[in-house]
Amino acid sequence: MAKQVYLFGLGTADGSVQMRNLLGGKGAGLAEMTNLGLPVPPGFTISTEVCTYYETNNHQYPEGMKEAVKDALRKVEEKMGLVFGDPEKPLLLSVRSGARVSMPGMMDTVLNLGLNDQTVEGLIKMGGDARFAYDSYRRFVQMYGDVVLGLKPTSKTEEDPFEVNIQEKKNEVGAKLDIDLSTEDLKDLVGRFKQAILSATGSDFPENPEDQLWGSIGAVFGSWDNDRAIAYRELNGIPDDWGTADNVQTMVFGNMGPDSGTGVAFTRDPATGEKKPYGEYLMNAQGEDVVAGVRTPLPLSDLKTSRPEIYDQLISTFQRLEDHFKDMQDVEFTMQEDHLWMLQTRTGKRTGFAAVRIAVELAEERLIDEKTALERVDPEQLNHLLRPVFDPEEKRTAIFQENRLLAKGLNAGPGAASGKVVFSAPDAEEWRSRGEKVILVRIETSPEDIRGMNAAEGILTARGGMTSHAALVARQMGKVCVAGCGALNIDYSQARMTVGSKEVREGDTISIDGFTGEVIAGDLSTRPSEVIQVLIEGSLKREKSAMFGKYQKLMQWADRFRRLRVRTNADQPDQARNAIAFGAEGIGLCRTEHMFFGESKITAMREMILAANLEDREKALAKLLPMQREDFRGIFRAMDGYPVTIRTLDPPLHEFLPHDEDKIIDLAASMGVDADQLKAKVKSLHESNPMLGHRGCRLGIFYPEITRMQARAIFEAACEVAKEGISVMPEIMIPVVFERNEFADQEKIVRQVAEQVFQERGMKVDYLVGTMIELPRAAITAAQIARDAEFFSFGTNDLTQTALGISRDDAGTFLPRYIETGILPFDPFQSVDREGVGELMKWGVEKGRTTRPDLKVGICGEHGGDPKSVEFCHEIGLNYVSCSPFRVPIACLAAARAAINDD
Amino acid sequence: MAKQVYLFGLGTADGSVQMRNLLGGKGAGLAEMTNLGLPVPPGFTISTEVCTYYETNNHQYPEGMKEAVKDALRKVEEKMGLVFGDPEKPLLLSVRSGARVSMPGMMDTVLNLGLNDQTVEGLIKMGGDARFAYDSYRRFVQMYGDVVLGLKPTSKTEEDPFEVNIQEKKNEVGAKLDIDLSTEDLKDLVGRFKQAILSATGSDFPENPEDQLWGSIGAVFGSWDNDRAIAYRELNGIPDDWGTADNVQTMVFGNMGPDSGTGVAFTRDPATGEKKPYGEYLMNAQGEDVVAGVRTPLPLSDLKTSRPEIYDQLISTFQRLEDHFKDMQDVEFTMQEDHLWMLQTRTGKRTGFAAVRIAVELAEERLIDEKTALERVDPEQLNHLLRPVFDPEEKRTAIFQENRLLAKGLNAGPGAASGKVVFSAPDAEEWRSRGEKVILVRIETSPEDIRGMNAAEGILTARGGMTSHAALVARQMGKVCVAGCGALNIDYSQARMTVGSKEVREGDTISIDGFTGEVIAGDLSTRPSEVIQVLIEGSLKREKSAMFGKYQKLMQWADRFRRLRVRTNADQPDQARNAIAFGAEGIGLCRTEHMFFGESKITAMREMILAANLEDREKALAKLLPMQREDFRGIFRAMDGYPVTIRTLDPPLHEFLPHDEDKIIDLAASMGVDADQLKAKVKSLHESNPMLGHRGCRLGIFYPEITRMQARAIFEAACEVAKEGISVMPEIMIPVVFERNEFADQEKIVRQVAEQVFQERGMKVDYLVGTMIELPRAAITAAQIARDAEFFSFGTNDLTQTALGISRDDAGTFLPRYIETGILPFDPFQSVDREGVGELMKWGVEKGRTTRPDLKVGICGEHGGDPKSVEFCHEIGLNYVSCSPFRVPIACLAAARAAINDD
Repeated sequence: MAKQVYLFGLGTADGSVQMRNLLGGKGAGLAEMTNLGLPVPPGFTISTEVCTYYETNNHQYPEGMKEAVKDALRKVEEKMGLVFGDPEKPLLLSVRSGARVSMPGMMDTVLNLGLNDQTVEGLIKMGGDARFAYDSYRRFVQMYGDVVLGLKPTSKTEEDPFEVNIQEKKNEVGAKLDIDLSTEDLKDLVGRFKQAILSATGSDFPENPEDQLWGSIGAVFGSWDNDRAIAYRELNGIPDDWGTADNVQTMVFGNMGPDSGTGVAFTRDPATGEKKPYGEYLMNAQGEDVVAGVRTPLPLSDLKTSRPEIYDQLISTFQRLEDHFKDMQDVEFTMQEDHLWMLQTRTGKRTGFAAVRIAVELAEERLIDEKTALERVDPEQLNHLLRPVFDPEEKRTAIFQENRLLAKGLNAGPGAASGKVVFSAPDAEEWRSRGEKVILVRIETSPEDIRGMNAAEGILTARGGMTSHAALVARQMGKVCVAGCGALNIDYSQARMTVGSKEVREGDTISIDGFTGEVIAGDLSTRPSEVIQVLIEGSLKREKSAMFGKYQKLMQWADRFRRLRVRTNADQPDQARNAIAFGAEGIGLCRTEHMFFGESKITAMREMILAANLEDREKALAKLLPMQREDFRGIFRAMDGYPVTIRTLDPPLHEFLPHDEDKIIDLAASMGVDADQLKAKVKSLHESNPMLGHRGCRLGIFYPEITRMQARAIFEAACEVAKEGISVMPEIMIPVVFERNEFADQEKIVRQVAEQVFQERGMKVDYLVGTMIELPRAAITAAQIARDAEFFSFGTNDLTQTALGISRDDAGTFLPRYIETGILPFDPFQSVDREGVGELMKWGVEKGRTTRPDLKVGICGEHGGDPKSVEFCHEIGLNYVSCSPFRVPIACLAAARAAINDD
Repeated sequence: MAKQVYLFGLGTADGSVQMRNLLGGKGAGLAEMTNLGLPVPPGFTISTEVCTYYETNNHQYPEGMKEAVKDALRKVEEKMGLVFGDPEKPLLLSVRSGARVSMPGMMDTVLNLGLNDQTVEGLIKMGGDARFAYDSYRRFVQMYGDVVLGLKPTSKTEEDPFEVNIQEKKNEVGAKLDIDLSTEDLKDLVGRFKQAILSATGSDFPENPEDQLWGSIGAVFGSWDNDRAIAYRELNGIPDDWGTADNVQTMVFGNMGPDSGTGVAFTRDPATGEKKPYGEYLMNAQGEDVVAGVRTPLPLSDLKTSRPEIYDQLISTFQRLEDHFKDMQDVEFTMQEDHLWMLQTRTGKRTGFAAVRIAVELAEERLIDEKTALERVDPEQLNHLLRPVFDPEEKRTAIFQENRLLAKGLNAGPGAASGKVVFSAPDAEEWRSRGEKVILVRIETSPEDIRGMNAAEGILTARGGMTSHAALVARQMGKVCVAGCGALNIDYSQARMTVGSKEVREGDTISIDGFTGEVIAGDLSTRPSEVIQVLIEGSLKREKSAMFGKYQKLMQWADRFRRLRVRTNADQPDQARNAIAFGAEGIGLCRTEHMFFGESKITAMREMILAANLEDREKALAKLLPMQREDFRGIFRAMDGYPVTIRTLDPPLHEFLPHDEDKIIDLAASMGVDADQLKAKVKSLHESNPMLGHRGCRLGIFYPEITRMQARAIFEAACEVAKEGISVMPEIMIPVVFERNEFADQEKIVRQVAEQVFQERGMKVDYLVGTMIELPRAAITAAQIARDAEFFSFGTNDLTQTALGISRDDAGTFLPRYIETGILPFDPFQSVDREGVGELMKWGVEKGRTTRPDLKVGICGEHGGDPKSVEFCHEIGLNYVSCSPFRVPIACLAAARAAINDD
């Protein structure tokens, strides 16, 4: 084994940020800050190799390690001018785990190490407050008992002996909160704690600091193999033999007196991205006091006047950190008297707004290049710039001035929503039908709640994670969702919930922020993002929006690097125009059936379906022809110069007829047909499994006149629009093909009609005929199909349904459970299932191009807007992805990142 | 180019049966008969290479070909002592096409070539009847006009000038039938025909026989490229450059006088297989007279007394042919005065009975070996030995004595059925409900007829081929079917049909033979085949049935050669016993859900489904446990020593509940639950696409207690039966898996329960846990699944449904059309779709065995009983196929043939 113990914070460090595998993330960071010359409390890291040795050698340490620790400790003592265990000037230590990757909360930590009846007095002598010293001592004994001596309860029914003691003490002295306990009370508690340890373990609490240290080091290494950590590693695929490092570090105190203090800060504003440090601090306080919210922290800028030299030191530190890490940092710092200590630095979390602005500005500042800027923005974060948001000022006021923040859950469905609280799905539907905006609040949701979820503006649940039923369904529906908000105490029977002492009743208004997981009491106004105001609404001039400028720059860079084209799924000219504003380069899927649902069209469609023979059917189709032609004219005009992929009729015919008895009778009356006859037709069209029924090209093969009418509408429209000087590029796409002969049958009809129309009009328009690949057999026989088909477009929704044998309509009963329990790692309808559906796609692309090397291949399932799926599409060599208009920018960014990643 | 013209029938022949590519099938056969020393009318074959040259060289012949033909003709004249075109002793010729493979009726033929006004008189002088001579002349001119001069109408609206002339002549002389025309009338017609040719073509009919010959040779070569032949080649994948040969042969006449005659014969009985020549003949007649049925032919045995020397010559010829071709032959012969001419020999078609008997007996006679015997029986022909048949004597009497044969259609669904005729599907249902046995007669069937088809004993249609809707659906349903019986004249409005002069009215009884396509008036009794009587009913001793003896021998040989194991799909002990009698070597699929439909079981099952919580569900499952255990005990006992694959619960739960309002109310009353609650439950279990819904392992994962109960029932039964000294081999199979984690979840439960039961019982039983591969993703991820699964069983029904995206329940609306129009070459639910589903299977086997080289793989979809699919399963290395009990012998034979083929 190489070196086992690595010093840091001594002006120099033995390690660096490159040594993450050996030192863990925390250890490497502390070393790196030391190397930057930043004031880090001295300490040392015991390497992960020691952990592995310890775990595999019956909890023995490798030779020389104990000596190395002692040696390192001596150097830390020297540096600090303190001595570990010294009753006058005691050095106190923390012992923290730190693995190669973050495993938050899975392993153990011991703080305030080195305290005993003697050193606690030394701490007071060194300037510490007596109550603070004894509270630290009390906490240390408790923590040591829990972590090192194993007194922590392992089940909920067991009692924590320390908490029992605290409660008893409070009862004795009439204290309500911990803070009501006096120094004497705490001193007494220390004694009781030690007694509890003796009776539980049969041994005394170790007063000797050296024993404490070795106990803690062993416990932290040992926690690598506790049940939680093992489960976490299994779930995240972290190898058991990585091990954790052990960081032993000098304790520093922000609560040493009025000149001391502690704070947290971001080097730029994490909400807006503005280049201005943002943070807060408390004087005479420790880290947990800032978080606990008992005292109100002060804004960082106040430090400028109160402690200018510290402030300047901080600002230059921030600059140092950004220069070094090339990103916005989230730091913790402590002022112990006039000394500034940097306790942590890490990449700061940020909103989507901030992500875009920071990335673009860092590139403008030449700290990073454009590729790196693109890598800094998670494509999903663009949602922040596209979905409705709360007015940021109003929200800040609500939270910070009006104290209206109720709780924070998981940001499970992006967007912002306000509405009246209801506690049941039927109520949501009913209130909605009265015109109320509602937020559906449930302990957790189940498939029965789906219609209620759809009626609500947003969904808030007390239980369940990012892959719970509520979260999955909400994201699918595009609903705002905050899930797993454990602080909520929901009482259905009383139609109310409490959060701490606050109460929310049915009908009360709340606001939920699906970007942050925040739940806020009362109303907050939502508004379209600036990007939408500029691009879609035109209500904001682009030069007036700084945000838009950054967005635009980022998207331009994305366009420069991406190799995948991005198209949109759109059936209406206005949708198509929006998509172009977002950067779409064509339509990848125009569903003609959506066009049939208009008032006059559906009537003609129904006449066609009810026609007793070919002649009547052609009469009805003749009525549809001019309407379809008009639809296509609109689309072609909107997409001047861009290709438009038009899919021929797809859904089974019964979808165009009513199914309720009453509605059938009404329809029969209005169409002047016999109701029984209509009922019989509806019955005859009924299918056991319509998803696998008479649809797609199966309709076109059975009723070639339908395909003929649609082809005619397309080519007549194309000719007419082309005559206006507009560039028209129709691509006719045949759905539900599983066999080359099916495609050939429909292709022949399309080409015949094209020739007829071109002859009639005396002109020609270039066009392609291709097919959906949405059934496994189509992918498998792609080489044959590509002999005729000029392009493929993966219909990954149906491909997922058939490859996995899952009806999406019915999956709500079991799919969320699959994802929650880890049977599937994610929802295959959201992100392409690479191992199954992805293999079929790869096969389809490869085989298709063996026959037709220039085969154009795209995707038009909803996966086309999912960043991970876009990345996959890039990897397997697709030409384009197509997605809904609002996901076009996301797909563009994902495509750029995939290309950069690939270089 | 090599030799172009090949003589035959001159004592020696230039060709042989090995030269099929060059001489075509017919030419090679004629050469081979010559080589055997059989009396073949002399002639010559112009090779297929000449055809190819002719087609690609603007209808020119290769150098030297004309001379070779003339030379050959001279040799034929010499041999026959006749001269082509000679007015005294004219040689007449036929010119026939004959390609490498049979293309029946696609190309052209010219007969009686060489007739003109002079030679016709020569024909009479040589002993021919004058009327016959002029009828031949008239036919020749007509045929030459049609075939060589192109007067044959190309559409139905055009009139055939020759037929017009015949009709006019008949009107003039008051003749009804052709036969009523006198010699003079025919002579006159010849003149009118020539006139018609002159006016249509502007040229005279060629009187010069040499011109006639070259015209005919060119026409026959040219017919290789007519539209019908091109279409046929495309459909059957026959390369265009194969070409046809041209056979020029001496005409011989069985109608030269009372000593002449013609006949057809089989060297063994084609119905029973008995080793006894079977045939019939007519004196003073030509081939077409035997077929036309105007005169009643005599049985071949009569020839023994009337023409003993000819008879002996024939019998020794038969022996010669069988010795040479090693199979039963179907021959045509002509006696011209005292000369016997063999015109054709080919392998004779035969019933299933005859196929088995002939194959086994030829092997016993050592003419063929056992492998060849197995290759001689089409596995589907075994149906003849397994399905109900008519009493053969009764049927022969009905046809030959009572003249009750109405017509003959296509043998579209094997079996024998008698019943009352109905002409509509609703009538079939209604009559059936009154207890009548009915035969549904339709012009053609459509999806609306399905329930009526199911109610009928058999289906008879006037239109449609072997892949028509009627044929496909009947075979799927296991119904007797005769399709495409064009002689039927069906009049729905009068509820009757006529066949020639015979009439059948609604309610009249008819009998249809699905093995032969025969439609017979009146009732015929059906009975189980002898094999069934021996093996299943035990009503016939095996030593009393010669048929059974042959069957048994064949199956023993099959067992010796096959490498695939054959199992059965069976849920009941008696099914299992039948399957063993048929040769099954285990159960490949025991569907546990079928066991739940008994009276007491369904009640407990419903209680389980309606249970509000786990506790109630476990109570209901506890009731099911002893019943399931009892089921498994029965199965294990029946399958002593054989493996039993038991599939855990598969169908969605709603299948166990009623769906009609009334039935729900009844059930609620009988179960003592609230009707509304029950309705709500039924509604909540409803699925849009149940085929892709909450079923299979998805149930077991959601309700692990169900899997637990089933596993317990299996292992308790296994222990109990094993204690009785019976060898028990359970294989637990998890359905609807698409992901390894699903399998692992269920496997863990099964193994846990097994350990529990073994501990409780103090004993162990060997078992396997494996999975169905019935979803595309399961096949794709087979490598992962095989890490845990000990065996795979392909569920090809569901795999076909999902790979092709076709719901079998709904496919009736379009799948028959697909097959009729050739979009699909066959029904993928009947025979494995190799290109799609088959690729997934191959992938599954290969990938599965990369992880687990000894992975056992089988198939339990219905394809397991389809011979083509069995062959495929052999090819891709499956270990076993599993099928319904009655298809076990078919699968065994198919497996043997596949293995032999593979050697």
